[in-house]
Amino acid sequence: MEAESRQWTAALVVIGDEILSGRTQDLNVAQVAVWLNQHGIRLAEVRIVPDDLNRIAETVNALRAAHDYLFTTGGIGPTHDDITVDAMAAAFGVPVVVHPDARRILEDYYRDRPGGLTDARLRMARVPQGAELIPNPSSGAPGVKMGNVYILAGVPYIAASMLEALAGKLEGGRPVVSVTVGARAPESDVADLLRETEAANPGVAIGSYPFFREGRYGANFVIRSEDGELAKRTGEELARRLREEGYEPVAGGI
Amino acid sequence: MEAESRQWTAALVVIGDEILSGRTQDLNVAQVAVWLNQHGIRLAEVRIVPDDLNRIAETVNALRAAHDYLFTTGGIGPTHDDITVDAMAAAFGVPVVVHPDARRILEDYYRDRPGGLTDARLRMARVPQGAELIPNPSSGAPGVKMGNVYILAGVPYIAASMLEALAGKLEGGRPVVSVTVGARAPESDVADLLRETEAANPGVAIGSYPFFREGRYGANFVIRSEDGELAKRTGEELARRLREEGYEPVAGGI
Repeated sequence: MEAESRQWTAALVVIGDEILSGRTQDLNVAQVAVWLNQHGIRLAEVRIVPDDLNRIAETVNALRAAHDYLFTTGGIGPTHDDITVDAMAAAFGVPVVVHPDARRILEDYYRDRPGGLTDARLRMARVPQGAELIPNPSSGAPGVKMGNVYILAGVPYIAASMLEALAGKLEGGRPVVSVTVGARAPESDVADLLRETEAANPGVAIGSYPFFREGRYGANFVIRSEDGELAKRTGEELARRLREEGYEPVAGGI
Repeated sequence: MEAESRQWTAALVVIGDEILSGRTQDLNVAQVAVWLNQHGIRLAEVRIVPDDLNRIAETVNALRAAHDYLFTTGGIGPTHDDITVDAMAAAFGVPVVVHPDARRILEDYYRDRPGGLTDARLRMARVPQGAELIPNPSSGAPGVKMGNVYILAGVPYIAASMLEALAGKLEGGRPVVSVTVGARAPESDVADLLRETEAANPGVAIGSYPFFREGRYGANFVIRSEDGELAKRTGEELARRLREEGYEPVAGGI
C-alpha cells in the first residue's frame, strides 16, 4: 500500500440523554461526517451514549485507541448534566483543572452580560489537565482538544463553528469524491447491474438509495472513491448502461 | 428493587455508509427512541456502523447480550450493499434461508408490478434460519425478528410502519413521563437551582436545553421520571422557583 493511500479514520461519540430519549433530533453526525470527508478522513463509527460518566469514559477509551481521531459532541455546557469534561479526565486518568485561557475568554465574554461570570459559567473553563482549547467563534465557551480527542458543543450551530475553527488543522488523506447518478429505476430491477459495475471498477463503492416521487419509483446511485477520475468514469458508465436498459435519467442528489 | 421497577433497555444499530458519509440525515434514532419510551423501554445506546459484515455481526453480538432488546435499521433492501441479514446469520452462527411466508408476501406484492419477483427482489425473503417476520404494511418486504433482535428497514417511513406493526408486542416497564418547563432564563444562571431541584426529588432526571429566540436567551428544562406524578410535581416546583427568581415563563417544548 502506498503511503498516500493510507486510510484515515475517525469515530464520533454523541453524548446526551436528549438524543436517546428522542426529544432532540441529532444533527451533528451528518455535519461532522461531511467535515471529515472534506479533510480526507472517513467517519468509521458513531456511538450515542447517555449522560453517564463511566459509560462516556469507557466509550472514549475504546474509540480513541481504535481510530486516528475521536470527536465528541454534547455535555460541555454550564449545567449539572454537562459531564463530558469530567468523563474525559477520568478516561485519561488526569485531574480536571481550570484552563487560564478559557477563564480569560469567559471573563471577556460575560463582562457586559447580565449576571457576569458565575460559578456555573466558570464550569465551562474546566478541562482535563494537559488539554488545549478549540476556539468557539459563536458563543465564547471553547471546545477542548485532549490528545487525539476533539470535544465539541452539542448545539449544532456551535459545533459547526468549532469545526470551522479546526478547518485545515487535521492531517488526512485524499478526500472521498462522490458522484450521484439518478434514474427512474426501481433499485431491485438494477441490482445485478450495480453489482457488476462495482466489481468492474476496483476502488469504488456504489450505494443505492431508493425514492418514491411523483407517483413513481426511482433511486439515486452514489459512486464513492478516493480517485475522483475513477468515480466520474464509473458514474458515466453506469448512467450509459441505465439508459441502454431504458431507464429514464433524473437529476442526481436528493 | 420491586419487580415493577425493573428497567428495560434496548440498543439500536443504525447500519449504513450513507449515514456515516453524511449524505443521508438519520431519522430512525429519534423515532425508535420515542416508540421504545412509549413501551417503557429505555434506549440505552446507539451505534452507527458501515456496510461491513464483520463489523455489523460483532456489534450485534455485543449489544444483544447487553440489553433486553436490540433493534437495527438499514441494509435489508434488494441490492448488493444490503447485507444485514447475512451479518445477522453470521452473528447467530446459522445459515441464511428463504422464509416461505416472506416469499409468499413478495410473490403477492410483485405479482402485478412490472418485472415481477426478480432474483434481486427475492433476496428480501432471506432470513437467518429460525427467524420470524415483522409485517411491513408499507412496502411488502417484511422485517425480521431473530431472538431479541428486531431488524427494520432503513427508509424511515417503512421503519415506522414496522414499529407500528410491533406496537404493544414487547414487554416493558412503566413508560418514562417527561414534563417540560420553559423560561427566559440563561441556563448558566439557574444551574444551581436545577441541581438542587433534581437532588431534592429522587427518581427524576432534569435535562437543560438552551435556546436563543427573538433576540433573547432561554432554556427548556425537561423533567423525566417513571413516576408521572413525581415528574409533574417536580415540574411545578421548578416553575414556581423560576418565577420567584424573576424569570419569565415560556411555553415548554421546542
